[in-house]
Amino acid sequence: MLSAEIIAVGSELLTPLRTDTNSLWLTEKLNDIGIEVKLKTVVGDDEARLEEAIRDALKRSEIVITTGGLGPTEDDVTRQVSAKAVERDLVYHDELEAELRERFKRWGRDMPEINKRQAFVIDGADVLPNPNGSAVGMFLPLVGKCLAVFPGPPREMRPMFEDFVFPKLKVLAGDVLVKRRILRVSGMGESAVDEIIAPIYKSYPDVQTSILFSRVEIEIHLIARSPSSEEAAAVLTELTEKICSALGPAVFATNGETMEEVVGSLLKARGKTVSVAESCTGGMIGMRLTEVSGSSAYFIEGSVVYSNESKLRTLNVSELTLRDHGAVSSETAEAMAKGMRERSGSDFAISVTGIAGPDGGTEEKPVGTVFIGYSDPRRTRSMKFVFPGDRELIRWRSSQAALDYLRRQILKETSN
Amino acid sequence: MLSAEIIAVGSELLTPLRTDTNSLWLTEKLNDIGIEVKLKTVVGDDEARLEEAIRDALKRSEIVITTGGLGPTEDDVTRQVSAKAVERDLVYHDELEAELRERFKRWGRDMPEINKRQAFVIDGADVLPNPNGSAVGMFLPLVGKCLAVFPGPPREMRPMFEDFVFPKLKVLAGDVLVKRRILRVSGMGESAVDEIIAPIYKSYPDVQTSILFSRVEIEIHLIARSPSSEEAAAVLTELTEKICSALGPAVFATNGETMEEVVGSLLKARGKTVSVAESCTGGMIGMRLTEVSGSSAYFIEGSVVYSNESKLRTLNVSELTLRDHGAVSSETAEAMAKGMRERSGSDFAISVTGIAGPDGGTEEKPVGTVFIGYSDPRRTRSMKFVFPGDRELIRWRSSQAALDYLRRQILKETSN
Repeated sequence: MLSAEIIAVGSELLTPLRTDTNSLWLTEKLNDIGIEVKLKTVVGDDEARLEEAIRDALKRSEIVITTGGLGPTEDDVTRQVSAKAVERDLVYHDELEAELRERFKRWGRDMPEINKRQAFVIDGADVLPNPNGSAVGMFLPLVGKCLAVFPGPPREMRPMFEDFVFPKLKVLAGDVLVKRRILRVSGMGESAVDEIIAPIYKSYPDVQTSILFSRVEIEIHLIARSPSSEEAAAVLTELTEKICSALGPAVFATNGETMEEVVGSLLKARGKTVSVAESCTGGMIGMRLTEVSGSSAYFIEGSVVYSNESKLRTLNVSELTLRDHGAVSSETAEAMAKGMRERSGSDFAISVTGIAGPDGGTEEKPVGTVFIGYSDPRRTRSMKFVFPGDRELIRWRSSQAALDYLRRQILKETSN
Repeated sequence: MLSAEIIAVGSELLTPLRTDTNSLWLTEKLNDIGIEVKLKTVVGDDEARLEEAIRDALKRSEIVITTGGLGPTEDDVTRQVSAKAVERDLVYHDELEAELRERFKRWGRDMPEINKRQAFVIDGADVLPNPNGSAVGMFLPLVGKCLAVFPGPPREMRPMFEDFVFPKLKVLAGDVLVKRRILRVSGMGESAVDEIIAPIYKSYPDVQTSILFSRVEIEIHLIARSPSSEEAAAVLTELTEKICSALGPAVFATNGETMEEVVGSLLKARGKTVSVAESCTGGMIGMRLTEVSGSSAYFIEGSVVYSNESKLRTLNVSELTLRDHGAVSSETAEAMAKGMRERSGSDFAISVTGIAGPDGGTEEKPVGTVFIGYSDPRRTRSMKFVFPGDRELIRWRSSQAALDYLRRQILKETSN
């Protein structure tokens, strides 16, 4: 099995505030083709240490990947240091400078002279085009080894790796096939999920199963390795089906989809539309639903009714409801959902009103108290939650609970 | 200034699912006493690579800290490998075995024989007691250097570091005090910022300046070290003022505040209110503004007008405007902002309409074309942008541009 080492470059990654996350993504991709990551290094904009890190890594491992340090400023040293570490020259590429000038022109700006540095490439290296940024990457084959040099921003590095380096490494790594599947579960805790599914996954010792907790959901990762791709996929399908029937509708995704993608697919498949009325989430649910490309087919309108006046004005919540029950109540949540649906003419509407904190909590309604409303032409209802966490987490959990409530209602509504 | 390197040990830290976080906590502690972290390594339970990592780190840096790999099983190799790396023996400590036996007795169990390994300590090292676990740590002073070896679990490592190692390092580091300041800049590229401010920060060689690009803004990090805390703060204030006057209103934060916090403070200080009309950002601007606790003082209402009908219905955008200019146009952006302000009665309103992609672009209006509208009681205007990036990035950049536009208008409006 081939070994890889990953070197993340950038002084900001040596501060208490930032950490290298590129290596996690790269590790997953490498593991998928049976390549093991043996060592990871984070080094600052420090020529001597970076050179040593690259040299040492190339001594120990067949595949060395660096991320970061390819920007145009003086701090960005990876280009010249990696050339030095492999004892090659940097070669100037006219066509790269021309492309850079063109790119800046499209942005309506002149190219600053320092960006010229980004037109230099290690002698003998393949240029890895970067459609999302100004720094190209490099792939240098060496005797029995290779060095791949990427920019740091994930949205630049990832497509460059996938399009140009992954296929080469796949060939190098031979024919190990790894299949992976991610299930997502809402409304249950980590240990409750494990208690139910442990007897199932333990009867599949060849599948590596891990249960992870993310801030709003549980992920079940299944990994199967097999010489045959179909065989691995078949085992995963079988195990996925067993887990789904044990956990029921709490499993909302079986192929790693997000909650907003799942809700979007359900709406699209049924030709239904939705609108959203948000108070404490401030637009987050609208943002999440419209994160999905093509969401204009089912997302009609959203209202962020932060003030009481806007709840009256825009959603027709009655003054009486607000006065008697308060803005954070099941009555207001239901009135918001109903008002939103009637205003927009959508098939479904959901609403959120709650106390995200840190201020505003009372003994009766502490911080984290959230009401989710739901309305369709036949019924309007609501649910109360009390979420732990800080403001950001309470808002995320509220948006997830609202989307999940909608998902379960669509399933119920359309199965009747 | 002393340099440190941190080595995290454990094969689980080389999977896609886990990452070393101990080093972030340690870095903050070290920075506070003026020690810089120069390199971080993550290595598996791999004797050869770990030995090399420790040897190399001790060659380059005065302080080397390892975390993890001190458990009782065969996988746990840090104890013997660190002894080998410094060419010392492991010495058996009777009293540690006695303590371990005592600890297991308290748990009502017999000590497994393999735990005896945890009674071995590098010759000459101080033993660091571990009140929360069975693995003691070690602190080994060497000529002009030191090696500190900790167990991996944060709740074990942290008190051990704070109680025994931090005081020693503080003495070693002398009386250096560190102050830190973060400036944020919008609407300019990394290299343009660097070109303007390099001559300024280069005349402050004692301040460490780094320019970082995040997805929607540039961060300028300034770090000053001085024997006097006031002196360090004064130098940072002076440099900050010079940078601000060179970059002008592009600097939106001088103490690390986010754009939404800055806009919120401006509105609050002036007793003004805002409302937001969003199309392609889908609620993101509302979400960002309400991320700030206390934002109900100035945030009145938001509308996510995704469909044309909702633009007509809720914001009073005329059918004629939509037909003649299209939903993505300066005319529609202005009508949205004006309609939103009139609807909500807020002092200011901003709007966004654009093409976030991946579909929907045309030759005339490619993906990334975004119009930001602004309205106050005296005027309504708009600005066109063409943002590079994918759907998510275009949406983030749009929300940032809208908030920044609002910020600049508030400054202009209220300075007249």
